[in-house]
Amino acid sequence: MNKNYDLIIIGGGPAGVTAGIYSARQRLNALLITKNFGGQIARKAVPIENYPGLGEISSVDLIQKFERDLKKHPIEIKNVSVFKIKKEKDGFIVVTEKKEKIKTKTIIITTGADPRPLEIPGEKEFIGKGVSYCVACDGPIFAKKDLVVAGGGNSAFEAALSLSNYANKIYIIERGDKIRADEKNQEKVKGNNKIEVITNATLKEIKGDKFVKEIIYQEKKTKKNISLSVSGLFVEIGSQPATAFIKGLVEFNDKDEIVVDSTNCRTKTEGIWAAGDVNNIPFKQIVIAAGAGAMAAMDVSIYLQRK
Amino acid sequence: MNKNYDLIIIGGGPAGVTAGIYSARQRLNALLITKNFGGQIARKAVPIENYPGLGEISSVDLIQKFERDLKKHPIEIKNVSVFKIKKEKDGFIVVTEKKEKIKTKTIIITTGADPRPLEIPGEKEFIGKGVSYCVACDGPIFAKKDLVVAGGGNSAFEAALSLSNYANKIYIIERGDKIRADEKNQEKVKGNNKIEVITNATLKEIKGDKFVKEIIYQEKKTKKNISLSVSGLFVEIGSQPATAFIKGLVEFNDKDEIVVDSTNCRTKTEGIWAAGDVNNIPFKQIVIAAGAGAMAAMDVSIYLQRK
Repeated sequence: MNKNYDLIIIGGGPAGVTAGIYSARQRLNALLITKNFGGQIARKAVPIENYPGLGEISSVDLIQKFERDLKKHPIEIKNVSVFKIKKEKDGFIVVTEKKEKIKTKTIIITTGADPRPLEIPGEKEFIGKGVSYCVACDGPIFAKKDLVVAGGGNSAFEAALSLSNYANKIYIIERGDKIRADEKNQEKVKGNNKIEVITNATLKEIKGDKFVKEIIYQEKKTKKNISLSVSGLFVEIGSQPATAFIKGLVEFNDKDEIVVDSTNCRTKTEGIWAAGDVNNIPFKQIVIAAGAGAMAAMDVSIYLQRK
Repeated sequence: MNKNYDLIIIGGGPAGVTAGIYSARQRLNALLITKNFGGQIARKAVPIENYPGLGEISSVDLIQKFERDLKKHPIEIKNVSVFKIKKEKDGFIVVTEKKEKIKTKTIIITTGADPRPLEIPGEKEFIGKGVSYCVACDGPIFAKKDLVVAGGGNSAFEAALSLSNYANKIYIIERGDKIRADEKNQEKVKGNNKIEVITNATLKEIKGDKFVKEIIYQEKKTKKNISLSVSGLFVEIGSQPATAFIKGLVEFNDKDEIVVDSTNCRTKTEGIWAAGDVNNIPFKQIVIAAGAGAMAAMDVSIYLQRK
């Protein structure tokens, strides 16, 4: 543990990769630690149409291009999870899940957010047996099957549209009475005869034997329980920032997002920055996360120069 | 002048185009006004290596891809300059240079900034051939080379320090007798044996063949012309935000940048946002501007929904 990095970037999604590119270009002695590249994006094979410059591209292809661009730059990469971070007098020790201890002067956290679970009976038991948080990983298994997507935002609508390429029938089930997906996604879903949207419906239970066979939801107004014979459930109801490993070291808001100064992504803890979906900037988009990663890396460089 | 737009975006660089894509996806009734696409970027045919996902790409190709992606979306575009903006009771009237008057509820300003040029012989001819206004973009090309940085402020000193990570020798040339860079930057430069500071020196001419080979400056006291054999010149003497048309309507800082809330790009004038290099967020980069454009458009959509 003799080496002392200028910067450790934790996370390999759009914010982390962009921070990596920028720190390498500033010739910081930087290390990027990520279990795998892409974060949330790599887990859903959805078409992305709003990252300017790349036209319409699948999320998997997008993150491969990001990874390719990072690897053209001189930066060390370790594919491992971070277990915790300890504050030292002059910096930090990053401890990996393999108990490796790595010293650094500064840290940029870009660990993004994980899918939020429904927390209903059957959900945990049927993970990998019909319950999924990852259209990219599991979608194609369900060719010609009937499915439920839980959620009413863009990610639920985009998941349903993506699944409609091969599934037989998709029910989007939203708890509230309002759809939060943008107009364009709502139009696309309206024009797709495989997809049916059900609002004011609370998912109650997932049943099956070896695999999911039945989803039960309650109509809010009538209190009636309805059963759908389906083979799978994709949960798209939002996310939880992946911040457990840094608890106590930086300030969180009530969503467990890391609070930053949005002009430079600094946390209130000297030496730690946070960029992308993990921080409290309200808009969760690939291009915004990438911009924040660039901002954080440039600010780290200024911070180290002035120190 | 019967039509009343939800949103007029002024400017067609990365921030404006991204705001256009996002507002079209939100199905806002939006108009994008720009004399031409690309802003600063389109005027310099420099290679861009730090916009993640596009690898190494010329600035001209990059902005063409942005323009292509914008035009896939339903948004009106007018290729004209804006002359001024008038505040009305319920919104704004945008007046073009052709005296056309267009009504809108909200405005996003993305007119960018231009680097302040030296205005000396050879400067224009060698742009992209050794003359640069952006260390983050072009610095790494000059590994092991001798360079000049023009300017005596923080941006010049930080440019020189950043370049010293890979260049061989850097001359900072400042016209006046005072250095305006802060103490920390001055100390850093003093402790860096690759960097030499020359004050009281007026840059006179840039010479070369295909690329820059020589920079000539005049010692103010002796009036002697001195020649330096260098491969590049980075001009860091400030920038000029393109904000004249909006003077009096939004708050500027002392650099004439538009002051915004960096969590959503709102100005202090209700109904006006500013994104990209035109605002006071300190990092001027393509991916940061694009992220800010997305953020502004999403926030406009929320603002209009709540109104």
